Amino acid sequence: MMRPGARQYVVSRPLYSEDSFAEEHEKIYRHRKTIFEHFRQYFTCDAKRAKNACLSLLPIIGWMKIYRIKEWLFSDIVSGVSTGLVAVLQGLAYCLLASLPPWYGLFSAFFPVVIYFFLGTSRHISVGPFPVLCLMIGSVVTRLVPDEGPPANITGFEGLTRDEQRVLVACSVTFLTGIMQLTMGVLQVGFAVMYLSDTLVSGFTTAAAIHILVSQLKFVLGLTVPGISGPLSIIHTLVIIFGKIPSSNVCDIVISLVIIVVVFIVKELNDRFKSKLPVPIPIEVIMTVIVCGISYAFDFRKRFGVDVVGHIPKGYESPMPPNLHIFQEAGVEAFPMAIVGFAVAFSVAKVYSVKHDYIIDGNQELIAFGVSNIFGAAFKSFVASTALSRSAVQESTGGKTQVAGLLSALIVMVVTLAVGFLLDPLPKSVLGAIVIVNLKGMLMQVGQIPYLWRRDKPDCVVWLGTCIASILLGLDLGLAAGLGIELISVVLRTQFPRCSLLANIKGTDLYKDRKDYINIYEPEGVKIFRIPSPLFFANIEFFRNKLVEAIGFNPLRVLRKRNKALRMIRKLLKKGDLQWTSKGFLNTSCGPIKETEDEDNTDDLDLPIDFKDLPVQIDWNADLPANIIVPRVDIHSLVLDFAAVSFLDISALKGLKTTLRELIRVDVEVFIVACDTYILEKLYGCCFFDNEVQPSTFYLTLHDAMLHILEKHPESTEKNLGNDRIRTTVTVPNPGGGVRSRERNVCVTTSIYTVSVIFSSAHY
Amino acid sequence: MMRPGARQYVVSRPLYSEDSFAEEHEKIYRHRKTIFEHFRQYFTCDAKRAKNACLSLLPIIGWMKIYRIKEWLFSDIVSGVSTGLVAVLQGLAYCLLASLPPWYGLFSAFFPVVIYFFLGTSRHISVGPFPVLCLMIGSVVTRLVPDEGPPANITGFEGLTRDEQRVLVACSVTFLTGIMQLTMGVLQVGFAVMYLSDTLVSGFTTAAAIHILVSQLKFVLGLTVPGISGPLSIIHTLVIIFGKIPSSNVCDIVISLVIIVVVFIVKELNDRFKSKLPVPIPIEVIMTVIVCGISYAFDFRKRFGVDVVGHIPKGYESPMPPNLHIFQEAGVEAFPMAIVGFAVAFSVAKVYSVKHDYIIDGNQELIAFGVSNIFGAAFKSFVASTALSRSAVQESTGGKTQVAGLLSALIVMVVTLAVGFLLDPLPKSVLGAIVIVNLKGMLMQVGQIPYLWRRDKPDCVVWLGTCIASILLGLDLGLAAGLGIELISVVLRTQFPRCSLLANIKGTDLYKDRKDYINIYEPEGVKIFRIPSPLFFANIEFFRNKLVEAIGFNPLRVLRKRNKALRMIRKLLKKGDLQWTSKGFLNTSCGPIKETEDEDNTDDLDLPIDFKDLPVQIDWNADLPANIIVPRVDIHSLVLDFAAVSFLDISALKGLKTTLRELIRVDVEVFIVACDTYILEKLYGCCFFDNEVQPSTFYLTLHDAMLHILEKHPESTEKNLGNDRIRTTVTVPNPGGGVRSRERNVCVTTSIYTVSVIFSSAHY
Repeated sequence: MMRPGARQYVVSRPLYSEDSFAEEHEKIYRHRKTIFEHFRQYFTCDAKRAKNACLSLLPIIGWMKIYRIKEWLFSDIVSGVSTGLVAVLQGLAYCLLASLPPWYGLFSAFFPVVIYFFLGTSRHISVGPFPVLCLMIGSVVTRLVPDEGPPANITGFEGLTRDEQRVLVACSVTFLTGIMQLTMGVLQVGFAVMYLSDTLVSGFTTAAAIHILVSQLKFVLGLTVPGISGPLSIIHTLVIIFGKIPSSNVCDIVISLVIIVVVFIVKELNDRFKSKLPVPIPIEVIMTVIVCGISYAFDFRKRFGVDVVGHIPKGYESPMPPNLHIFQEAGVEAFPMAIVGFAVAFSVAKVYSVKHDYIIDGNQELIAFGVSNIFGAAFKSFVASTALSRSAVQESTGGKTQVAGLLSALIVMVVTLAVGFLLDPLPKSVLGAIVIVNLKGMLMQVGQIPYLWRRDKPDCVVWLGTCIASILLGLDLGLAAGLGIELISVVLRTQFPRCSLLANIKGTDLYKDRKDYINIYEPEGVKIFRIPSPLFFANIEFFRNKLVEAIGFNPLRVLRKRNKALRMIRKLLKKGDLQWTSKGFLNTSCGPIKETEDEDNTDDLDLPIDFKDLPVQIDWNADLPANIIVPRVDIHSLVLDFAAVSFLDISALKGLKTTLRELIRVDVEVFIVACDTYILEKLYGCCFFDNEVQPSTFYLTLHDAMLHILEKHPESTEKNLGNDRIRTTVTVPNPGGGVRSRERNVCVTTSIYTVSVIFSSAHY
Repeated sequence: MMRPGARQYVVSRPLYSEDSFAEEHEKIYRHRKTIFEHFRQYFTCDAKRAKNACLSLLPIIGWMKIYRIKEWLFSDIVSGVSTGLVAVLQGLAYCLLASLPPWYGLFSAFFPVVIYFFLGTSRHISVGPFPVLCLMIGSVVTRLVPDEGPPANITGFEGLTRDEQRVLVACSVTFLTGIMQLTMGVLQVGFAVMYLSDTLVSGFTTAAAIHILVSQLKFVLGLTVPGISGPLSIIHTLVIIFGKIPSSNVCDIVISLVIIVVVFIVKELNDRFKSKLPVPIPIEVIMTVIVCGISYAFDFRKRFGVDVVGHIPKGYESPMPPNLHIFQEAGVEAFPMAIVGFAVAFSVAKVYSVKHDYIIDGNQELIAFGVSNIFGAAFKSFVASTALSRSAVQESTGGKTQVAGLLSALIVMVVTLAVGFLLDPLPKSVLGAIVIVNLKGMLMQVGQIPYLWRRDKPDCVVWLGTCIASILLGLDLGLAAGLGIELISVVLRTQFPRCSLLANIKGTDLYKDRKDYINIYEPEGVKIFRIPSPLFFANIEFFRNKLVEAIGFNPLRVLRKRNKALRMIRKLLKKGDLQWTSKGFLNTSCGPIKETEDEDNTDDLDLPIDFKDLPVQIDWNADLPANIIVPRVDIHSLVLDFAAVSFLDISALKGLKTTLRELIRVDVEVFIVACDTYILEKLYGCCFFDNEVQPSTFYLTLHDAMLHILEKHPESTEKNLGNDRIRTTVTVPNPGGGVRSRERNVCVTTSIYTVSVIFSSAHY
């Protein structure tokens, strides 16, 4: 029995190369599915799969089953009412960004929400208008139906007022966006959301928060600023706002500041006394009601010139088909809207799903938003995504499921159908202020920058790059730029791998960076080179350079020099200036032999060295006849540690093969160890091996390869062996128990080779 | 001494965790350079560095020193003359694509070449006009100075003829492109060329060849086709050409076919009899001269309506400053031109540098092209890159260095200054035919598709994607798309890693996929999970899912169930329905205990399990009191093999930590083995460890961790031990020599544990 506390690592087994291991241990043949079989399996249908598919298409079934009425319903009602009021206010506010009459924003806060209730997988996002999308719609709308001058030449515009034309444009674009999202969802392209890493999402949502902040500034300051979109629009908007600051409305600023301060403080209190309060105080709703009342009582609009919401017509309008001509005109603009709308919603949903620990499904979200937008567009609502601030309201007021969303839609419906007139006197600055104060959480993500910088610089660069690009270029281009930076960061992490030369930790089968430890052992003539990353197009050149640096010579150069030398020796032998005697080459010419300029084709210098028609093989490291000098090659074996090479691409394969061949041609034996099974299979499949590069160079572990090398080149260790033999007498550990400190240290100082020696002699 | 042929792997050493190894083997402190030190070193200047910098800025010094006059000069002269003639013809042809008067193409084939001679690192590319760039210039030119209607409102256009305005536009764009290239070169952004993998370059150059082929069709067919650029331009051009085919010129077609056939055959012969011919037959030149003579003699232009080169004015024009207003107008278009120009030249240069084995430097190439374009623009030449076909001529006619390029420029100069009139009767179809026949090599790259598909599917997708995108979208957008596909392919290779469960190969310290081998041993209660790729944002979720699948339970779910059960037991104990006796829990209530709906906050379900205020710790795998059921956890230890994990990003770090914590909270001990030193350092630096996740879970090798686990949980092996103990008697290998086949097989069938046992008992 093994003694507790002995803690010894003792192994005796045959030495294995990949070949000998495969010979001894039969591998089970496993049938690998082909691409077609995967496809067939994917499209196979049975009852269970069909049921699952239905369940995943209607996530409401899943969460309705676990709905805890007692605990959740009250929270959902409170949240739904608060969110509904915010949704009403935001609907009105954002609609102005889209250059449309305000009440269409109420439609956008109703129709898509109802559909999402059934199809969406996120329980906390508040579906509806999103300011950046509204800005994007606004740019299409004003392009096709400008404020001044005639509208674009589009069939279907005849007989419509300017506002009707604009609504037609907005709805058609929304319809197109919905179709794109639905298509992506059905094609299961949602897996691409894996690329939206936490870092990217954090940078992107921070930038989005800044965009929203800027878009609300004009309401808070009581200014009129035209909607601008496209790259650098945020700068232009800020320039306009700062230019107009002297004309800002003091009453609006006061209202906004009061609301921001009060809401902020009450929210902090809500957070602090979370456990003691039965439900968070719905401060936004309270403030809205109060300010609305005061505004009505003191007639803010007339007395202080405050911009208020104004008249809202009652009821819904009849549905309307989209315009195909507008599809053509605005197709290019609909795609980024589909992506940004989904990306924003998904990234917000992801934040909440992690916080509340449930699973959201990218494909189902795409389908949900696609259907929501298609359905909504028919009823004159425009592109729905989620507003970060409104989702924050829904979640922070205690919303547990989309029941809150549905209730918020009901509130919006009530406002549309009945009590819209009550909102007439509400100052727009109130809306702006509430939106801004809800951005706090998103804006606080800036605090991640120093955290990321200390921990992982590439991630920090991705965050900053995404955020800055999204702020400056707009969210669509910014997202693309962020994705690009993120993908490049992955490549960069492996582009400059820290290759190292390993050496044996004396007395063990372990190998570590030789620069890191003192008590290590490097057999002469052997180099162990560790590649700590996958090999592919971006780092194969780097790897080759590092390898040349590590072994101290360029194999191709050495090969060429040797072939040149050989050519010269042949020439001299032919001329008789050189003769072969039993003692070696004899220089028979009188003076020193002049190096003749080579006039031949240089192509065959890269071929393997060929000693035929020469009387003897030449020892390249000995002195050569006729003062010919070739660079010395000090190593006979090179071990490449492939343990961390997780994949190879074609460029790497070619580069690796070239390198191996060059090394083999200058008589360096190359061993590849700890290579992944699949990579080895791939090498066989790619005709990597030929009569020079052979599969017998593959060994199971580094130590196996080293033992093989030492057996083949006993001279490598002879120097060490002399010293170590004496020590072997003390290396038999204390038989009483664990080998402890002092004795063990002695054992540790023996070389690999002697470890083998001890056990060989002890047993056989 | 070790016996040759014994080939045994015998090791005895202490068992190491990372901690105990670090204790025993002191690490050398190595000062790592900070970013600032790297910067300082980079900008440090001494005599040697200054000299090297000068040499790299003037590559001509390097290759002039090794210039072998006897061998190379003749080849260079032949190549220079041939290339010069082709350059003259291409200059004239491509200039028409740029919508400029023909002779400006001759300037473009002269000025940039002279500068590149001094600054360029490629010895084989022929600098000068490139048809796709010419098309791109043409689109700017015709946008700002259209065929019909007034030119754009640009200061500096006053008093110029339409052709002069166009030349001004072309030169200004060229100047801007040059500045962009020079800036990129000085900022050392050339390292980005590493991203142009062989596969990408191959696909891209194939697409470029197809673009050129199409651009030459109209000359070969004798048609007039307007220059089109932008996405899908190739389709539009082909549609126009096919529409016009009935009106093509039979004489042009005959000339072209004859030239294509003759040149093709002679080039094949050149290739075949390469070794026998002193110099390849300059068939292009011969054919040009012959056809030019025939055309003059029989007056092709008048008799057959063949389109000929026509009048070329003599001499150069005075230099001209660029127009700043045009910089603003065409800035967005100059950038892709700078990139495409460089990318094409670099990719062609790379092909030849690999073929002829010398090094080209991306940054220096950028500087060379930047200066060439800035200088050229002043003398009314337009953007220079390289034409694939012309470079092919230069290389295949034997050009060894840029001396050939300089000579070609001299030929162009001679034509400009003196003998231009001789080219008057040359049919343009001759130019087109020669260009087309030289595309053969580039087009033959299509043959790589099946090769790549068989060997590496992602690479094949990159090739096809780049090629198709470059053909359809144009070379600028196509290159961007190709780069995107390539980057995504890198991420995709690691996004769905083939995680596997390992098991011990009996009698060894080796672990392999348990599905692959029959004779393997898995101790009970231990799972070994191998992660075969780096962990980062794109695969951390995948990894967690695979891990949950492999261990058979979701640790978070189990933790929550256990905490819920605990909460219920506490409640029952309080109520008195359950009592603790020496025999265990005793259910004292009469009926079965009803599961009460949980009304508390669910947040603390994720906390570690806390047994305080309970009389006993609960064994979760035993039957629980009161019919409470929690999922069974069958494993006590999990080993994660990190050997192939080459990096971790922040997302992966967070995900990994969450997973580890969840596992630890359900009493599964996690061991991470073979972790890279730098990753371990990073984990320390990122505060990965706390009082739950501890560094003592890291072990040096898989076998170390397994031995530790088996020591700690002897019950894991007891079942096996019974069988194996009997066998241990035969496992002492044959003392006479090598352990061969039959005996060894016996040894191999013992378990890990018994291997340790044999040696423990043998020695201590």
